[in-house]
Amino acid sequence: MLLSGHGMVSDEIIRDAAQQVHTPFYLYDESIIADKCRQVLNMPNAFGLRVGYAMKANSNKAILQLIHQLGFYIDASSLNEVKRAYLAGIPLSHIMLTTQEAPLGEDRKQLENFISKGLKYNVCSLLQLQLIADFAAQRQIPLSIRVHPGVGAGESPSRNTGDHYSCFGIHLTDIDKALFFAAEKGLKFTMVHTHIGSGGDPLEWRDNIDRELGFVHKYFPDATTVNLGGGFKEARMPDETASDINDLGLYAQDRFKKFDQKNGRKLVMAVEPGTYLVANSGYLVCTVLDKKQTGPTGFEFLVLDGGMESNARPLFYGSRHPFYVVSRTGELLSSEYNLQSLDSENDQRVVVGRCCESGDSQSLDREGNIIPRVMANPEIGDYVIIGGVGAYCSAMSPHNYNSYIQSPELLLRQDGAIQMIRKPQTLEQMVINELPL
Amino acid sequence: MLLSGHGMVSDEIIRDAAQQVHTPFYLYDESIIADKCRQVLNMPNAFGLRVGYAMKANSNKAILQLIHQLGFYIDASSLNEVKRAYLAGIPLSHIMLTTQEAPLGEDRKQLENFISKGLKYNVCSLLQLQLIADFAAQRQIPLSIRVHPGVGAGESPSRNTGDHYSCFGIHLTDIDKALFFAAEKGLKFTMVHTHIGSGGDPLEWRDNIDRELGFVHKYFPDATTVNLGGGFKEARMPDETASDINDLGLYAQDRFKKFDQKNGRKLVMAVEPGTYLVANSGYLVCTVLDKKQTGPTGFEFLVLDGGMESNARPLFYGSRHPFYVVSRTGELLSSEYNLQSLDSENDQRVVVGRCCESGDSQSLDREGNIIPRVMANPEIGDYVIIGGVGAYCSAMSPHNYNSYIQSPELLLRQDGAIQMIRKPQTLEQMVINELPL
Repeated sequence: MLLSGHGMVSDEIIRDAAQQVHTPFYLYDESIIADKCRQVLNMPNAFGLRVGYAMKANSNKAILQLIHQLGFYIDASSLNEVKRAYLAGIPLSHIMLTTQEAPLGEDRKQLENFISKGLKYNVCSLLQLQLIADFAAQRQIPLSIRVHPGVGAGESPSRNTGDHYSCFGIHLTDIDKALFFAAEKGLKFTMVHTHIGSGGDPLEWRDNIDRELGFVHKYFPDATTVNLGGGFKEARMPDETASDINDLGLYAQDRFKKFDQKNGRKLVMAVEPGTYLVANSGYLVCTVLDKKQTGPTGFEFLVLDGGMESNARPLFYGSRHPFYVVSRTGELLSSEYNLQSLDSENDQRVVVGRCCESGDSQSLDREGNIIPRVMANPEIGDYVIIGGVGAYCSAMSPHNYNSYIQSPELLLRQDGAIQMIRKPQTLEQMVINELPL
Repeated sequence: MLLSGHGMVSDEIIRDAAQQVHTPFYLYDESIIADKCRQVLNMPNAFGLRVGYAMKANSNKAILQLIHQLGFYIDASSLNEVKRAYLAGIPLSHIMLTTQEAPLGEDRKQLENFISKGLKYNVCSLLQLQLIADFAAQRQIPLSIRVHPGVGAGESPSRNTGDHYSCFGIHLTDIDKALFFAAEKGLKFTMVHTHIGSGGDPLEWRDNIDRELGFVHKYFPDATTVNLGGGFKEARMPDETASDINDLGLYAQDRFKKFDQKNGRKLVMAVEPGTYLVANSGYLVCTVLDKKQTGPTGFEFLVLDGGMESNARPLFYGSRHPFYVVSRTGELLSSEYNLQSLDSENDQRVVVGRCCESGDSQSLDREGNIIPRVMANPEIGDYVIIGGVGAYCSAMSPHNYNSYIQSPELLLRQDGAIQMIRKPQTLEQMVINELPL
């Protein structure tokens, strides 16, 4: 039986995968990634669409290869990410770098080398612009520019990438400086980039499109591509709503057409989702190690062998993820998407990991408080599977905390095969760089 | 000039260390660790003191060796931590395991093997007790037991290890079951352990001592050691106050003596600090990569080459760390402990890392909001040093986020030598377990 009602991961697949590798492990569903990629590729647009994958969401080599094969370029957020994508076989001409990391010292030569081989560079600060100016001007290499719009969207007032609490891109109040400097050097900006955060509010997205087209009109006569960034919201939980990217595309299509009618410029639209492509493809398969309770006014706890070291999003952000309970013989006992048969009062449980850390729980609210969740009652040795872990889990978690190893990653191919895409880390690898006293 | 007014790390040491290894890097001050260890070893006590180091705070091999040489046993929170300490040369008889990880499957044999070679096992759940009972009974190996007292202390209501929101130890309402089972098997508990969290409130600590001695009197006639856990608060910022461990020791000494007068039992006191021993020994040395601003109503930002991937405590907990600014030529420009010469209005800055993540800031409050901090105005290429990073930074941070490498670790020895204790990770090591599509 399918776990989540979409994709290909079923209770049988969980059982089969758990026979191949010890829990905890990540299992990604290729069919969901492919489906999401197609959705983005099919976004309505006026004069062409350039799609990128924000690889920081999930940087596994096979995932990069898969998404690149489906027609995406790769959006890297560090020089190391550029190298990592390149090592995965992605040509530099299919990679764009958008980073906070000004290329000082040796990094500058490396960046220049990559740009000369086709890397697209999205300048994000005045210093970045100054450091690359002579190189780009001499070779007549056009640049992209990230504009900080002065307003933002995001899941909390301070947790977004557009307003004055964050410093991503060249702030509007510095744009004149940037333009003056670029004009002096003879540099051209052929792409303009603005990203306002991951809130996914369609009205804020619409505002962002209008605002960015305004920047293009006012400041960037050479721009041929308008990069709207990422930040499409994905619904990990049944009560959440994903961004309607078709609707966003239709709105953008209309605005880009009107821009052309007024200004005679047919702009290509670029988008760079991360979460949206991979979040719901991922499952963290864990074994129930123990069951505990904290008295009549307390809770019932399920201690899993995976927790914050493999999914820190609840601790970082108070994020909720769906739970699935599968017996060790491979029978789906409960799904977040089908809880009707459970007793909403007595089937409340708190899911915790095995780290010696009070915040190591997958049952937290936004304030970091424990909230029990309705789910079936597993036996010791059964599986509890945490859904929605395809983005910002493997890539962002403190995987060696309490000296646990980095969990392995499996990919469920569309033909049903289960393929290892990252082997389990060994303890020897964890300490290989340490030197004795 | 000394950075913090204590220990041995000066601006000159920073400059010398930065010539040996690229920033960002951790630099630990052995003199501070040694001093803290001595403070704990000198805690007043009635009938003996057993001191342990909670290695999850900082698991580096050299740090383990150093603290063990100073007379501490090692408190491990996972089987992997036991192995890691053992690989560092610590005898199993000097290690105690206190974990959430019930030893299912192969883990059980491994645990039995370690216990047979001297590992002390602190049973933390009914299941853990059941799984080890026959083995321990046959060999007449005494156990420790962790009791969940039903009340807790900690920095937020849900972030502590004692109340009904967490499940560390066997809950008081299960003690009868545990005692009945142990008696049936002929098992003895020679150590009782209760840990209430890291709040450091001396009154709560006193309550915990009284409560635990009550448990020992009521339930544990064989107990010879009372383990009070860790959780001594360290003051990382000038306006914070550390636990007065001498005062705690004096209180415990009095209570243990009174317990002996009443019950004729001379109990050894055990403590297990982690943070207290290492937190203030650690500095994260970063280079200023860029400076940005977000308009007249915004802030001035310093972009460092180290951030959440090396110190996630601000993002996890809203923790504050002291900042030191050192010029690239090695001159201390400002210290968190000496800000008088700065303009508290105009010298406010926000410190961010280089991750493409809105929460990657070292200037957050408890709610995750950005708060600017008073500090000197560095040039690009100068150093900003984040203090108080000896505990739960290198060990707990998502070090490969945005594909940045795990930062290297240096130890400033008491003779002034700067010793590498962990080499920088390489990009090849980061992806070594990945397999192509």
